[in-house]
Amino acid sequence: MELVIGDKAYSTWSLRPWLVLKHCGASFDEIVVPLNQPDTDRRLREHSPSGLVPVLKVDGEVIWDSMAIAVWAAERYPEARLWPADAHARWLARSAACEMHGGFSALRTACSTGPDHWMVGPSRAPAPQHPGLDKDLRRIVELWRGMRDRFRGGGPYLFGEWSVPDAFFTPVAARIRHFQLDLATHGDDGTAQAYADTLLAHPDFLQWEADALASTGA
Amino acid sequence: MELVIGDKAYSTWSLRPWLVLKHCGASFDEIVVPLNQPDTDRRLREHSPSGLVPVLKVDGEVIWDSMAIAVWAAERYPEARLWPADAHARWLARSAACEMHGGFSALRTACSTGPDHWMVGPSRAPAPQHPGLDKDLRRIVELWRGMRDRFRGGGPYLFGEWSVPDAFFTPVAARIRHFQLDLATHGDDGTAQAYADTLLAHPDFLQWEADALASTGA
Repeated sequence: MELVIGDKAYSTWSLRPWLVLKHCGASFDEIVVPLNQPDTDRRLREHSPSGLVPVLKVDGEVIWDSMAIAVWAAERYPEARLWPADAHARWLARSAACEMHGGFSALRTACSTGPDHWMVGPSRAPAPQHPGLDKDLRRIVELWRGMRDRFRGGGPYLFGEWSVPDAFFTPVAARIRHFQLDLATHGDDGTAQAYADTLLAHPDFLQWEADALASTGA
Repeated sequence: MELVIGDKAYSTWSLRPWLVLKHCGASFDEIVVPLNQPDTDRRLREHSPSGLVPVLKVDGEVIWDSMAIAVWAAERYPEARLWPADAHARWLARSAACEMHGGFSALRTACSTGPDHWMVGPSRAPAPQHPGLDKDLRRIVELWRGMRDRFRGGGPYLFGEWSVPDAFFTPVAARIRHFQLDLATHGDDGTAQAYADTLLAHPDFLQWEADALASTGA
């Protein structure tokens, strides 16, 4: 089984299924395709029908979307409890992860990661200006606060125990840190920032971060 | 159970879970929030935590994303076989539906629907110009051709029998029709266009289209 990903320093989409597979204790090889190189498109197409990463190569097939990989993993590793066991929590967890999967375009545009803006390490950038950024951040803060308030008793993650939405929001937390976004100015009472801190302190993210910094020589 | 949707003439996201629920034979009420009105945002927020449609209200919860609704429906109505029964086909079907859920931004931007561009009825618009449109259409054609070639024996839909990706690609087929996009100029040998025609001839889409035209007085 092979997970094809982009540069660990800034491929936000790649991080998500990597965290999911780590949580499952899955054994997999990583194939890193360096992005922003002259031959990147060609190399991506060698692995990925969509020309995008991440993709998972397993059992002779290619699963070519981060959410599809997460859903595959939930089927393959039921003991990893990738979605909440409670049905209502599960419906909300899927909504939250899917909202991130398909939305927040202003945040992704304003805080795009790349060779100059990593999601790892100590580098810092001033908060960007973008007309839709406040709305996206207010929605994220509201969502995080709402779910944390409801599921606080179950653990420190969005739905208590770690689940797929936490994988999908980890790159958001990394963007908040890198771009020095002050969630308090977007409706946070501290709950959302504490959750972001929890995501960035997760051992699997710390391993990803160490890998990324090692690969870049930083 | 209530499905909150936007105008049937042009709310592409709303069509997807509506088709999914119809396929399940689910009994549900529709709440239509007219879009592009002065009070649209306020009315959306009354129903939807994200301020977006579609949302499904069920069992005291709100499921607020089209893919999350589809996954909920697959759990609730297993007899509807919303995903292919074959595991490999299922992995690919999820990849295809998720690729649409999160991608093809050039197509969605260039061929955006709204009061002036419906996805129903006889209206026609010239093919738009957009730097990313050809790439998106070539990928869609390639995807559709690849899956149709592989699963042709099982039926006329993307994975043979009707499944979630067909719901997600029906608005794409409607855009192709409205904007008079010629798939042959984007790599089609006729297979992709035939599949698009199949989606637009589905009885549930025809009902949606009739509802839309009736609601607009067209």
